[in-house]
Amino acid sequence: MDARGRHMLVEYHGADPAVLQDAERIRGLLVEAAEAAGATVVQVVLHRFSPQGVSGVVLVEESHLSIHTWPETGYAAVDFYTCGDGDPEAAHQVLIAAFRPSRWEQMMVERGLEGPEGMAMRHHRRSG
Amino acid sequence: MDARGRHMLVEYHGADPAVLQDAERIRGLLVEAAEAAGATVVQVVLHRFSPQGVSGVVLVEESHLSIHTWPETGYAAVDFYTCGDGDPEAAHQVLIAAFRPSRWEQMMVERGLEGPEGMAMRHHRRSG
Repeated sequence: MDARGRHMLVEYHGADPAVLQDAERIRGLLVEAAEAAGATVVQVVLHRFSPQGVSGVVLVEESHLSIHTWPETGYAAVDFYTCGDGDPEAAHQVLIAAFRPSRWEQMMVERGLEGPEGMAMRHHRRSG
Repeated sequence: MDARGRHMLVEYHGADPAVLQDAERIRGLLVEAAEAAGATVVQVVLHRFSPQGVSGVVLVEESHLSIHTWPETGYAAVDFYTCGDGDPEAAHQVLIAAFRPSRWEQMMVERGLEGPEGMAMRHHRRSG
């Protein structure tokens, strides 16, 4: 597998607290998002925090997709490392449709580059 | 839990292929690195790729630590999202000692910030 990858970091603010708190819904969303991006799911790990909040990680053949949610503030943090021809933007769109955030922010970082250029930020964009 | 966190992305190049290929060693290293950073381990997931390469994720109370290795090129990609008072640099030092990379690169991104500043790169530094 080519080590060159893209690492997408996304912040969702003003997201639906009921969805952010629903661990089983999040499990399904992570799988749906990973598959929408063209990734192959290997394993899913979920953890519910007390009194609220969910952490989830999907290991995919192309690396991983993670989420951490804070329903009390309507915030979720996502990162998605994909190698190969995957389309992380497709995963972002699946999550936007479910979380309905009032705003989001996305940073895309190139990973695994040989040579002096190293990690490079490809873009940093925001909603609205 | 405070949503404010630091997300450390690290590249290790020229790392020891024997360590990068050793899934059980990597499991132990991930736990050691997470604990060195002051994180509390919840769950560890490991996956061996064929013919080589390992992916591992440690869910911690403070978020997650992940690694993906490519022994054939001596490369490993790490990300560590920590909330609270954890010290991700301590995890980096544990991994450097084990992988003995000829060079590394680290990017630290502030996450979970309310307000217009949003995600912010705190630093981007390299070895040597």
